[in-house]
Amino acid sequence: MNITLKQAEKIIAVAKEKSIEIDTKMNIAVVDAGANLVAFARMDGAWLGSLDISIKKAKTARYFDMNTGIIGELSQPGGPLFNIEHSNNGLITFPGGVPIKNAAGEIIGAIGVSGSSVENDHTVAEAGALAI
Amino acid sequence: MNITLKQAEKIIAVAKEKSIEIDTKMNIAVVDAGANLVAFARMDGAWLGSLDISIKKAKTARYFDMNTGIIGELSQPGGPLFNIEHSNNGLITFPGGVPIKNAAGEIIGAIGVSGSSVENDHTVAEAGALAI
Amino acid sequence: MNITLKQAEKIIAVAKEKSIEIDTKMNIAVVDAGANLVAFARMDGAWLGSLDISIKKAKTARYFDMNTGIIGELSQPGGPLFNIEHSNNGLITFPGGVPIKNAAGEIIGAIGVSGSSVENDHTVAEAGALAI
Amino acid sequence: MNITLKQAEKIIAVAKEKSIEIDTKMNIAVVDAGANLVAFARMDGAWLGSLDISIKKAKTARYFDMNTGIIGELSQPGGPLFNIEHSNNGLITFPGGVPIKNAAGEIIGAIGVSGSSVENDHTVAEAGALAI
Repeated sequence: MNITLKQAEKIIAVAKEKSIEIDTKMNIAVVDAGANLVAFARMDGAWLGSLDISIKKAKTARYFDMNTGIIGELSQPGGPLFNIEHSNNGLITFPGGVPIKNAAGEIIGAIGVSGSSVENDHTVAEAGALAI
Repeated sequence: MNITLKQAEKIIAVAKEKSIEIDTKMNIAVVDAGANLVAFARMDGAWLGSLDISIKKAKTARYFDMNTGIIGELSQPGGPLFNIEHSNNGLITFPGGVPIKNAAGEIIGAIGVSGSSVENDHTVAEAGALAI
Repeated sequence: MNITLKQAEKIIAVAKEKSIEIDTKMNIAVVDAGANLVAFARMDGAWLGSLDISIKKAKTARYFDMNTGIIGELSQPGGPLFNIEHSNNGLITFPGGVPIKNAAGEIIGAIGVSGSSVENDHTVAEAGALAI
Repeated sequence: MNITLKQAEKIIAVAKEKSIEIDTKMNIAVVDAGANLVAFARMDGAWLGSLDISIKKAKTARYFDMNTGIIGELSQPGGPLFNIEHSNNGLITFPGGVPIKNAAGEIIGAIGVSGSSVENDHTVAEAGALAI
């Protein structure tokens, strides 16, 4: 199972709504089951540096099938995955990346959001992930 | 002047329509005046390798404010821009990248399309670029 | 549909047999539908430089769902896809990469072979692709 | 002395068995004395992001002829090798990479395993390394 463009566009639309609702400007990326970009949107005035971060968050969430923040907890100095970020051409391991599941609970892709605090990024990502 | 996300989404919607009309499956990328990605869509079943190509075409068109095919004519062996593709982390210089202008004729971004013949790619890119 | 490791290992086994049959030493790579490596084998004494080439051939064949040699014909100087090799972190567009299809004719991955003449590389890749 | 493909395939087979025994899904990479990939297998359903990590673990173990976890202890903040991960196009320095020795005790390659906890990764890597 793989995410469709129609699903990805719905996810981005919902994530944008949530972003506006909490008064933020986000970069929003959706990747498929192969961790390849399917859809992307950068809201007007969103941080430029968050473009790459949002894509890397989405990839990271799919690479390991978990929220990016969980990996970040494990990759701290002294933690079991310290410096895992050096793999895969660069991971982003703070919150804002969330796997996307279909109705059967299978992971079909992931969303990555960047542009505000990591709490806000995660809130918007989760809203998007739950849109389908 | 810079392209807005609303304009970029309109451009992608029109490019998708044109792509369906001519029976192709495209990767479609829109960059802003700073050559940074604003919006992207990969149609279901579109070539995976065209993802990167569509983004590079959009960037290339904005980097030099001209259709990518024109640069390709100049970058042939013996030509004045031979192997310019080695710059900017990789250019794509065959057709499918087109600058986007506002009503005043100012360049505000560019569209890159990849997924079929270069003729079809250009047709879809041009349809998108003319959507606003 | 995606290739399984068991299928990929069968493909590599058959490709190795064919390679021995025609007296060559090959690097053999198999990627899945997402163009990510599933299985790889470098035969003893095979060219070291062919390691990366075999993987890039497999990726290229899946990126565009066609034999790599076809892309190479189109990417010559003056051709419509000149210098397409600058995309996707480097393509290899001479023969030796072949898509892998399941019984239903769907592309589920690709094989890339490198270590001899491009004719031999293609022969071994095709033998592998037909193994399932 | 250098590892043979036959040895590498034996190592991967044993590592797969161990992985199944402890109910994990692993990416398993074997490199030779030159730190170049000899054989690789990604088990069905294994984390996609562990592909690159398993290869980097194998390379790291051979680059320094020691278990990757030992390097990780030295590369912590304040440690003598802090941020050594920035070298060699990216090292992975947590457990899961183990040198491979021949009967005479000479290092002939290394194995890298990724897909579960670092303890499990190391267990599978060690099982593989001891297979020859």
